[in-house]
Amino acid sequence: MTALPTHVDIRDVSLRDGLQIEDPIPLSAKLDLLAAIAATGVREMEATAFVSPSKVPALADAAELAAELHNFADIEFSALVASPNGAKRAIAAGLRSIEFVVSAADGHSRANVGRTSAQATAQIAEIVAIAHDSGVSVEVIIATAWDCPFDGPTPPTRVVDIVAAATDAGADRLAIADTIGTATPRRVSELIDLVHPASAELPLGAHFHNTRGTGLASAYAAVGAGVTRLDASVGGLGGCPFAPGASGNIATEDLVYLLRDSGVDVDVDLEKAIAAAEVAQNAVGHELPGALLRAGDRILG
Amino acid sequence: MTALPTHVDIRDVSLRDGLQIEDPIPLSAKLDLLAAIAATGVREMEATAFVSPSKVPALADAAELAAELHNFADIEFSALVASPNGAKRAIAAGLRSIEFVVSAADGHSRANVGRTSAQATAQIAEIVAIAHDSGVSVEVIIATAWDCPFDGPTPPTRVVDIVAAATDAGADRLAIADTIGTATPRRVSELIDLVHPASAELPLGAHFHNTRGTGLASAYAAVGAGVTRLDASVGGLGGCPFAPGASGNIATEDLVYLLRDSGVDVDVDLEKAIAAAEVAQNAVGHELPGALLRAGDRILG
Repeated sequence: MTALPTHVDIRDVSLRDGLQIEDPIPLSAKLDLLAAIAATGVREMEATAFVSPSKVPALADAAELAAELHNFADIEFSALVASPNGAKRAIAAGLRSIEFVVSAADGHSRANVGRTSAQATAQIAEIVAIAHDSGVSVEVIIATAWDCPFDGPTPPTRVVDIVAAATDAGADRLAIADTIGTATPRRVSELIDLVHPASAELPLGAHFHNTRGTGLASAYAAVGAGVTRLDASVGGLGGCPFAPGASGNIATEDLVYLLRDSGVDVDVDLEKAIAAAEVAQNAVGHELPGALLRAGDRILG
Repeated sequence: MTALPTHVDIRDVSLRDGLQIEDPIPLSAKLDLLAAIAATGVREMEATAFVSPSKVPALADAAELAAELHNFADIEFSALVASPNGAKRAIAAGLRSIEFVVSAADGHSRANVGRTSAQATAQIAEIVAIAHDSGVSVEVIIATAWDCPFDGPTPPTRVVDIVAAATDAGADRLAIADTIGTATPRRVSELIDLVHPASAELPLGAHFHNTRGTGLASAYAAVGAGVTRLDASVGGLGGCPFAPGASGNIATEDLVYLLRDSGVDVDVDLEKAIAAAEVAQNAVGHELPGALLRAGDRILG
C-alpha cells in the first residue's frame, strides 16, 4: 500500500483556472464565490491571472478583484502570470504570491504565450528577480508536464530540466500540471520520482484535470509519491482556452472526500465545499461535473 | 510505486448493471448494444439477471436475450441471480456462468432480496449445488462490501466471513462490490489485503461505481492489490434501484484508458469501446457520465 502524508494542502483554483474559460461573471459574483470557498477553511486560493484581458476576458477584472482580497486575511492568495509585465501588474495590485507558468512542450507554449518552452524557461530568473525585489514569492508551474495537445507525450527530461532551471533561478515553489487531463497514476508516480531529485527540497505541488476521468486517481498517486500540495476547483470548474480537449479541474469536494476517507488531514470542510460548488454552479449558470455535487457525502444509516 | 499485473480482465456489465435502472429498452436495442460491446474485443459480459421482472422490469426479457447469446461465441456470458429459483431459470435459459449476490450489510440485503446477509450467505451452497449439477460455474459477488446506504460502513470481517463461506461452499469465483460508490483507494487496498487469505486462491474480482468520482482510483488500487478482474460498463451506464445514491459503473472506456496508459494489457479496444458507449447513450436516450465519451482518447500532435 502507498504511504500517504498526514496532511495535504489544497489550493482552490476556482477563481482563476475555474473561471478563465467561462463567460465573464460580475465581480460581485466572484466575491460571493470567493466567500463561499473561504468558508470551507481552505488556506490557499488562486485568485486570478494578470494576463491579456483580450485573451482571457473572464479575468479582465484582476486588479479590481485583488483590491478586495484584504477582506480574507486567513487565505494566502496567488495570481498567475505569463510574463515579467504580468508579474509587475500582479505585484502592483498587491499580490504577495505569484505563479509563473512554463509549458514543457513547445506546441502548448507557443499557443499559450507565443514563446518556446526554452524562451519561457529563460524568463524565470527575471520574474523571480522582479518578485523578490518586492518580497513576493514565486511558484513555477510546469504546464503540459505529461502530454501536450499539439506535441503528444512530453519527454520527462524536459520537465526535469525546467525544474532544475527554476530551482537554480531561485523559485520558491514548484508545481507540475496535467494541463489536458491525460495523466494516469503510473506516469504521475514516475514523473514525480524523476522530479524530486532536481527540485532541491522546494515544495512540490501537482495540478490535475479530470478530462478523462483519471484526475482523482492521478492526484492520489501524486500524494503517494510525496506531493503534499494539490490544486482543485469547487464543482470541477475549469479548463484551458489554449488547450483543445481540456476540461474541468479535479473537484475540491471530491478531492476532500478521497483524502479524508484515506486518513489524510485537509483544512477543507466537505459540506461547505459542496455548498461552494453550488454557488459556483449558480454563478456560471450551467451544470458542473463534480461528483459529490450530485451524490453528496457518504450516506450513513 | 504499486506493482501492477500484466493483464486485467474486464467484464462489461452494461447489459445488466448498466441497464437495470433504466426504462426498459427493446430486445433489438440490447442486441445492437451487445454487438457493439462484443466488437471491442472484451472477453466477458454480464448479459442480464434472472430476478423478479416486477422489481427489475428492464431485465424482464432475460430468457429471450439468453436465447441470442449463442451468436457471440467468443464471449463468456454470465447472469446475475438472487435466489435458487433464479439460478434454475438462468441455467434453463442456457447460461453457463451465474453470479449470486450476497450483501455484506443487512440493510441492503433486506432491501435487495428481503433476507439478512446471513440468510443469503446460507444459500450459497444450494446455489452452487444447483449450478454444478449442470456444469455451470458460480461467482459469489459480495455487495456493499465497503459501505451500505442504510447501515453505514461495513465491518470488513463481514466480508471476510462471506468470502470464507463462499470458498467453503465451492464457489468458483469471488468479487467484491462497491455498490454505492463510496470506496476509496486506501480502504480498497485494506479490504483486499484482508480478503486474499480467505479466498483460497479463487479468482477475485472487484466492482466499482463512480458515484463520488473515486471509481477509477479505487479500481487502480484494486489492481495494485492483486485483483485481475474488474467490472465496468460502457459510458458508465448503471446504478442500483435498491441502493439510494448509487450511480453509474466505472466506464469501460475510461478504465481501458487508465490501464493501457499504465502498461496493463486488456482485451478491449479503446476506440471501439467509445463507439459502444455512443450506442449505449443513444439506446437509453440520455447523456452518460463517461469521460472519454466527451473527451476522446489522448490528443496527439
